[in-house]
Amino acid sequence: MTYNTFGHAFRFTTWGESHGPALGAVVDGCPPGLMLSEADIQPFLDQRRPGTSRFTTQRAEPDQVRILSGVYEGRTTGTPIHLMIDNVDQRSKDYGDIAQSYRPGHADYAYDAKYGHRDPRGGGRSSARETAARVAAGAVARLVIPEVTISAYLVELGGIAIERARFDACEIGRNPFFCPDAIAAAAWEIALDTVRKAGSSLGAIVECVATGVPAGWGAPVYAKLDSELASAMMSINAVKGVEIGDGFAAARLRGENNADAMRPGPNGNPVFLSNHSGGTAGGISTGQPVVVRMALKPTSSILTPVETVDRSGAAAEIVTKGRHDPCVGIRAAPVAAAMLAIVLADAKLTHRAQCGG
Amino acid sequence: MTYNTFGHAFRFTTWGESHGPALGAVVDGCPPGLMLSEADIQPFLDQRRPGTSRFTTQRAEPDQVRILSGVYEGRTTGTPIHLMIDNVDQRSKDYGDIAQSYRPGHADYAYDAKYGHRDPRGGGRSSARETAARVAAGAVARLVIPEVTISAYLVELGGIAIERARFDACEIGRNPFFCPDAIAAAAWEIALDTVRKAGSSLGAIVECVATGVPAGWGAPVYAKLDSELASAMMSINAVKGVEIGDGFAAARLRGENNADAMRPGPNGNPVFLSNHSGGTAGGISTGQPVVVRMALKPTSSILTPVETVDRSGAAAEIVTKGRHDPCVGIRAAPVAAAMLAIVLADAKLTHRAQCGG
Amino acid sequence: MTYNTFGHAFRFTTWGESHGPALGAVVDGCPPGLMLSEADIQPFLDQRRPGTSRFTTQRAEPDQVRILSGVYEGRTTGTPIHLMIDNVDQRSKDYGDIAQSYRPGHADYAYDAKYGHRDPRGGGRSSARETAARVAAGAVARLVIPEVTISAYLVELGGIAIERARFDACEIGRNPFFCPDAIAAAAWEIALDTVRKAGSSLGAIVECVATGVPAGWGAPVYAKLDSELASAMMSINAVKGVEIGDGFAAARLRGENNADAMRPGPNGNPVFLSNHSGGTAGGISTGQPVVVRMALKPTSSILTPVETVDRSGAAAEIVTKGRHDPCVGIRAAPVAAAMLAIVLADAKLTHRAQCGG
Amino acid sequence: MTYNTFGHAFRFTTWGESHGPALGAVVDGCPPGLMLSEADIQPFLDQRRPGTSRFTTQRAEPDQVRILSGVYEGRTTGTPIHLMIDNVDQRSKDYGDIAQSYRPGHADYAYDAKYGHRDPRGGGRSSARETAARVAAGAVARLVIPEVTISAYLVELGGIAIERARFDACEIGRNPFFCPDAIAAAAWEIALDTVRKAGSSLGAIVECVATGVPAGWGAPVYAKLDSELASAMMSINAVKGVEIGDGFAAARLRGENNADAMRPGPNGNPVFLSNHSGGTAGGISTGQPVVVRMALKPTSSILTPVETVDRSGAAAEIVTKGRHDPCVGIRAAPVAAAMLAIVLADAKLTHRAQCGG
Repeated sequence: MTYNTFGHAFRFTTWGESHGPALGAVVDGCPPGLMLSEADIQPFLDQRRPGTSRFTTQRAEPDQVRILSGVYEGRTTGTPIHLMIDNVDQRSKDYGDIAQSYRPGHADYAYDAKYGHRDPRGGGRSSARETAARVAAGAVARLVIPEVTISAYLVELGGIAIERARFDACEIGRNPFFCPDAIAAAAWEIALDTVRKAGSSLGAIVECVATGVPAGWGAPVYAKLDSELASAMMSINAVKGVEIGDGFAAARLRGENNADAMRPGPNGNPVFLSNHSGGTAGGISTGQPVVVRMALKPTSSILTPVETVDRSGAAAEIVTKGRHDPCVGIRAAPVAAAMLAIVLADAKLTHRAQCGG
Repeated sequence: MTYNTFGHAFRFTTWGESHGPALGAVVDGCPPGLMLSEADIQPFLDQRRPGTSRFTTQRAEPDQVRILSGVYEGRTTGTPIHLMIDNVDQRSKDYGDIAQSYRPGHADYAYDAKYGHRDPRGGGRSSARETAARVAAGAVARLVIPEVTISAYLVELGGIAIERARFDACEIGRNPFFCPDAIAAAAWEIALDTVRKAGSSLGAIVECVATGVPAGWGAPVYAKLDSELASAMMSINAVKGVEIGDGFAAARLRGENNADAMRPGPNGNPVFLSNHSGGTAGGISTGQPVVVRMALKPTSSILTPVETVDRSGAAAEIVTKGRHDPCVGIRAAPVAAAMLAIVLADAKLTHRAQCGG
Repeated sequence: MTYNTFGHAFRFTTWGESHGPALGAVVDGCPPGLMLSEADIQPFLDQRRPGTSRFTTQRAEPDQVRILSGVYEGRTTGTPIHLMIDNVDQRSKDYGDIAQSYRPGHADYAYDAKYGHRDPRGGGRSSARETAARVAAGAVARLVIPEVTISAYLVELGGIAIERARFDACEIGRNPFFCPDAIAAAAWEIALDTVRKAGSSLGAIVECVATGVPAGWGAPVYAKLDSELASAMMSINAVKGVEIGDGFAAARLRGENNADAMRPGPNGNPVFLSNHSGGTAGGISTGQPVVVRMALKPTSSILTPVETVDRSGAAAEIVTKGRHDPCVGIRAAPVAAAMLAIVLADAKLTHRAQCGG
Repeated sequence: MTYNTFGHAFRFTTWGESHGPALGAVVDGCPPGLMLSEADIQPFLDQRRPGTSRFTTQRAEPDQVRILSGVYEGRTTGTPIHLMIDNVDQRSKDYGDIAQSYRPGHADYAYDAKYGHRDPRGGGRSSARETAARVAAGAVARLVIPEVTISAYLVELGGIAIERARFDACEIGRNPFFCPDAIAAAAWEIALDTVRKAGSSLGAIVECVATGVPAGWGAPVYAKLDSELASAMMSINAVKGVEIGDGFAAARLRGENNADAMRPGPNGNPVFLSNHSGGTAGGISTGQPVVVRMALKPTSSILTPVETVDRSGAAAEIVTKGRHDPCVGIRAAPVAAAMLAIVLADAKLTHRAQCGG
């Protein structure tokens, strides 16, 4: 029954719609005494911010965060941290048609079926603007797990995958696609320009990696780290698939090939000879990098007309004008990184509750 | 912090280890007045029961369930339903080596890193025996959603996929693989016999479909039906990937191809022309079949020796004798069906809480 | 682990400190389609607002609420409702001494022991200003339970109890004490003026009654309506005791005197001949008025010097200047009414989840 | 929505009815590595066990507990601990009349109003037999907080209070009333014999004290230690009032009298000169003894006839034969102690999650 809350020991609750006056996140359970200011959060919001290239929506949102509670003299107090972001560039008139007809591939019809009453402006609560609040909460989560380093990037866009041999972490920040492969980035640019001009959209695959996670976070059964990660990532707009480690490819391996052999390591901890498992075993972290990958569908907010029905049930055709991302997968990378940070911060505190340390 | 509990309005808690005296599930929040007896549960347990073919573990467990509370004069009372299953065929001596060395691909090392103290017999709490309790709880969940029909089957085993054109629902119960394609089943039999004799194991992909789910279950943001399903399925032993609808394939479609167009339908509800979304939009059911797929890795409980370390950190080699499934994906089908029933029963009650009806 | 969230199906999360820029509540799980505007909330905030008489703190807070999300075209959408109230009259300089020495009877020492880092201004998160957010959330809860009428009033102040025979509901709004007995109100005025001038404070007993609650809300065992009410009321600042129905007095009755006898009633429901139980039996509502009473200690924010220690552990003496209520019990009445509304709204939705209707 | 689960980080779920085959508790979140056997639990169950004197029900239940999971080689593993107790002396035929007519003061009518379908045998799920499961869970909780010592005793029975000056902890175990005052115990014996023979019942007040609780457990706002305690105690059968520290009496004190003055203490922690607050301030423990008191109504299971209605709504008269406690408050003492242990164990782990240590 926690519709808008995520997490257990470290948890946050978000509020706000695409075209409301503002949106925010209330972070609860954060340890006290951590140094925190808006400057710790803003860089992550800037990564997700729209309008930074022609490949994202042209909606101009500065996404300036304000900390309204939970911090005193620059340090967290252990009480709820409210992070608020004003919406400044709503253009609700763009959404007149959408109020009457259901956009296929969008939540419009399902919303009406559920609630009967819906805010159609920009997708309302279903808008990916909600993810700004998550990114802000994720920045706080990172402070809880200073031992962990998180990176997120696209490994595929419009069916064009990166070449793993060309993987260059430094490249991720150099192109508008969070792409670690410069050659793939160039191909993506062409592909995305093409569909953008055609009024269509493309899907993508995002990969997130957390290094520095010690062995022992997570739990067996329903609190598996895998389960928490799947839940977190599948809650991101447009995500339709999640895998940990080798994921679906593991289903095609033989047992001895999938097992990550162990050898004695330098500091007493074992060294693993591979990481098919993506850093978890039995739902608990192993000390290897945690690797999660997710598939994002192409947005249905497109200029190509699609057959649909209107609220009265009659046949209609719809074109979604508004301002949209031709590939929502791009801006999902910082969102996924935030969710990974949140899951790990929660796992750290939850582990500490039961096992101490 | 709900380590061993799953669900919100309809929820259950499981307990028990592979080699303890028994295991069970406490189902809470079940509506009152439903007809329920052991006979409603046993058929589902029998589907999951080990030892029914040479392709599953030879451990002989009758998996007889007893209802110890929550039912009076054959009907649920609304109070907790305790479902208990005795373990009768534990052979702990098989696990002597495992207590000392960590099985790669298993939870052994991660458990010790987390808890310091571990029951190594048969995987302890990490054993897939825990899933018997889920299947029992799932049988109760089915009574909560009589409008829904659930099926679960394998679509791939050891890299050999079914042919969708040969899909025959009647075939699922006719082979030991829950395979809807007789020709694929024959190929799987050969493949699995080969690896079984070689002391190895294979992975699989399971698909679950729920028809009859009305539009409106689920919720946006963190209680998305997709998110609940991902969490549920990823909590099943050996699952490393989950997708809804087209899942990862959706990432390779263009927007207009992925959008499920709608046309006016006979009873006032729209008819969808495709189901790329897998029955959800914005996290809420659309009235289309809910489709979820999951990847299961090949078990690491194999006779092939693997390099590892022992509890002291020294190099070792390990062979897992015991009695194991050469493809854990097979018996995961009824478990996945149970989890799907549980997620949907929970979504129905949660929807009713907020929206009535 | 829900430090700042209350409720299950209908739940809210509050944030904000006494001397921060604002405070607020995020209401989640509210049914869609309810008419809601600031005008539905403001009257309840005005009842709790400080500075309306000389018997409450002179801090001048208009407590104007803004709805920042969850409402579209005047109706709730089923998504989170964020209610925000700006703080406008913080005078932090009043609290210099408090940062160094612990006020006996306050949370100061316990906070430092727990968090190490504390916002001392006006009590920070421990300030009763947090209750403004609850009152706002409570106003939303009332819309969920239109069948219920709630009243809250003081039945004792400074040890002077009302005379039940003089109970007059119309009197409650006519004096600054929410007192239903005009003669008692006159006595309270004298008593409170005396202690106020002496730089001291008085305690009080608040009673809340909800009529119109149908039989069947609540649940046995850990979700007893009594248990939820006790939790709700005991979370209000300065409350140290809670009782339902006859409460502590019931411990002095014989069984046959405490049992509320039933007779056939006009509409098929039974009529009860007494209400010792306060409207619940076995934790479930009976259809009788729900009656809950709570004891509020006298505030320790007083001008009378008290012996204490400072942060270094050295002996000190402290006088709490600031601006404080000489009897915090007075303004607790609308807060208790809000919490009662929230518990009942939650119980209604939770009941609907399990039992339908 | 946690109908039958209590707690957050340390939590347990109970199941079972008065006349079912057994009852139990699943304890989740328990730290690993604690020494635990049935012998650690049985003494607490024996304190609560019926039939040990003529002042409790004559139902003969050995209340032997079995640990069915979560313990390996004598130590907790961190996985769920299932504690099961068989019912051996059910006499369902005693309850024929109760199935047809509602016992005033009992949950019968409210149950039917809620669920429509009810197990009337011995109160079903509403029976105080459920508390055996809590006592078992409480015994595990005590192992989590070895620094804490808990005692529970009656301070009033049938309106006869103990004399605090005669308080003798050694006396508690010497009489069948958990009474710390030998003279009061003698008076209670006479009073209870009288009402027992008259077919009636008496109420009582139980007090619980925990010493050794360090400063810093609990949290402000909705996770106040006071709030958790109130919720815990009010969930015990027949409890209708809860108070912390001076409780209702605090409402009659002046601020300076209620404030617990502090002086420098020997080990750096302050020494408090009084404990009006009952060991908490702002919902957080202060290091003083935690003191909670609760009022138990006289049971309505009496031989004296009471007016009621039957299931058809017609007038009836009822006498509750069965076997009952003439004062349910007596056996509530070990139950209250168990709930106090559980709340504190949970508070310790929850505190550790957020603040470490």
